[in-house]
Amino acid sequence: MKNDNNSSKSLETIDIRVYYEDTDAGRVVYYANYLKFAERGRTEYLRVHNIENSKLAEETGVFVVVRHLEVDYRAAARLDDLLTVETRVVDLGKASFTMQQDIKRGATLLVTLKVVLACMGQDGRAARMPQALRTILEG
Amino acid sequence: MKNDNNSSKSLETIDIRVYYEDTDAGRVVYYANYLKFAERGRTEYLRVHNIENSKLAEETGVFVVVRHLEVDYRAAARLDDLLTVETRVVDLGKASFTMQQDIKRGATLLVTLKVVLACMGQDGRAARMPQALRTILEG
Amino acid sequence: MKNDNNSSKSLETIDIRVYYEDTDAGRVVYYANYLKFAERGRTEYLRVHNIENSKLAEETGVFVVVRHLEVDYRAAARLDDLLTVETRVVDLGKASFTMQQDIKRGATLLVTLKVVLACMGQDGRAARMPQALRTILEG
Amino acid sequence: MKNDNNSSKSLETIDIRVYYEDTDAGRVVYYANYLKFAERGRTEYLRVHNIENSKLAEETGVFVVVRHLEVDYRAAARLDDLLTVETRVVDLGKASFTMQQDIKRGATLLVTLKVVLACMGQDGRAARMPQALRTILEG
Repeated sequence: MKNDNNSSKSLETIDIRVYYEDTDAGRVVYYANYLKFAERGRTEYLRVHNIENSKLAEETGVFVVVRHLEVDYRAAARLDDLLTVETRVVDLGKASFTMQQDIKRGATLLVTLKVVLACMGQDGRAARMPQALRTILEG
Repeated sequence: MKNDNNSSKSLETIDIRVYYEDTDAGRVVYYANYLKFAERGRTEYLRVHNIENSKLAEETGVFVVVRHLEVDYRAAARLDDLLTVETRVVDLGKASFTMQQDIKRGATLLVTLKVVLACMGQDGRAARMPQALRTILEG
Repeated sequence: MKNDNNSSKSLETIDIRVYYEDTDAGRVVYYANYLKFAERGRTEYLRVHNIENSKLAEETGVFVVVRHLEVDYRAAARLDDLLTVETRVVDLGKASFTMQQDIKRGATLLVTLKVVLACMGQDGRAARMPQALRTILEG
Repeated sequence: MKNDNNSSKSLETIDIRVYYEDTDAGRVVYYANYLKFAERGRTEYLRVHNIENSKLAEETGVFVVVRHLEVDYRAAARLDDLLTVETRVVDLGKASFTMQQDIKRGATLLVTLKVVLACMGQDGRAARMPQALRTILEG
């Protein structure tokens, strides 16, 4: 089921500063670290709507886990860069959803991610999405 | 162009122990850290054939960078697990190549990655693959 | 030589949110990651005075490196915590300086660091502190 | 109480390869990452004596946590370096112990750590050291 909300409504943006910890000997951000930036973006997407990772599991018994990931690396970020991470929901199912995330430096698109997330119970099996989470993802 | 070598020839395997540094508060390996394991696997794939990351760039002026990534997360690794990373070349072009990487615990497949890597010159533009690298990737 | 400025003048504070990337399977922040938080604090201490890591080296040929570190771990930070890092100069020499850094959650002191930093030239040897840096550290 | 065993008895050594993930834009290993290397060394020190982090807590209810840390950075490790981490017990108390760790490249000493570790119960308070752990640390 496609999320038909217009994107301006469901788009959340955070700023990220690049520190030494994020870079590697190639003098650019290490390729795995864009996934950290993306996870911060997804976390703040929920937090801005009053859902915290640490409480969602406690209150509903449901964890949100990454099931599938596609990443395009177009250009590299460097030390001291100020980046933005844009996060939006592009697909919403019964037990899973898909987020599109764009990492930019100013207007320049550096890295894009498509992230498929699934709801999982404490037994490790697929679980129905909690209504509180669904409401937020529907925008 | 497909690499038609049989896979037993081009497959390289490394062992990886999971330490606290790799895990997160969900008590499993943090999703970005499988990319570190995969990068160790690709590095050792080259090292076993006498190519080191730090020397390839110096000697040929060509860097190998990740352009595209697809990851499937099937099951989670945990603290103290002993994992294996299997790395093989599945496609080989003029300036890029694709590696398939399987991260396993024993016979259990945990995470699979398809990684598209490209050769880049010091000017940041696509570069022809150095012959020494091509020879190795052809198996 | 002691820095005799009163501490309210030279103290800089940043906020840090704890994400999954920072935690480990003990459900607390991994012990090495407080050093990342501290390095962000030192970087922002300089940035607020218009010195960026990436430009200092370019413009003066001098790098600032950590020579010695003492860390006291008093209490643990957890997922979703909002922390503050307080950074101040406590000692200033000809080619090195010492920073005291306190990592807190609200009024609770979690981790304290004493960090000795040294100026190093491109030859890897001790170098005189650039005047622009000295002026800032003197508060 | 000093551990009076001769050091050849209690010394454990592991090898560590430096990958891109460990380095930063200064083209050396990032300062916090030596703490990861040290933690791998401490973990293998116990594992070689059949104690695993993940089982110690389960079986005894006691966690081992870092309380205090002193690090001297003498020289930098670089991409593709092969390092050794030497770990030995230098002090052993009722609820805490101290390890000395030397990180070397060949005969060259790069980084030394003195790490004070404490036993902690599930209530977060100091706990008596489990006998199985004490026996190992006494060498």
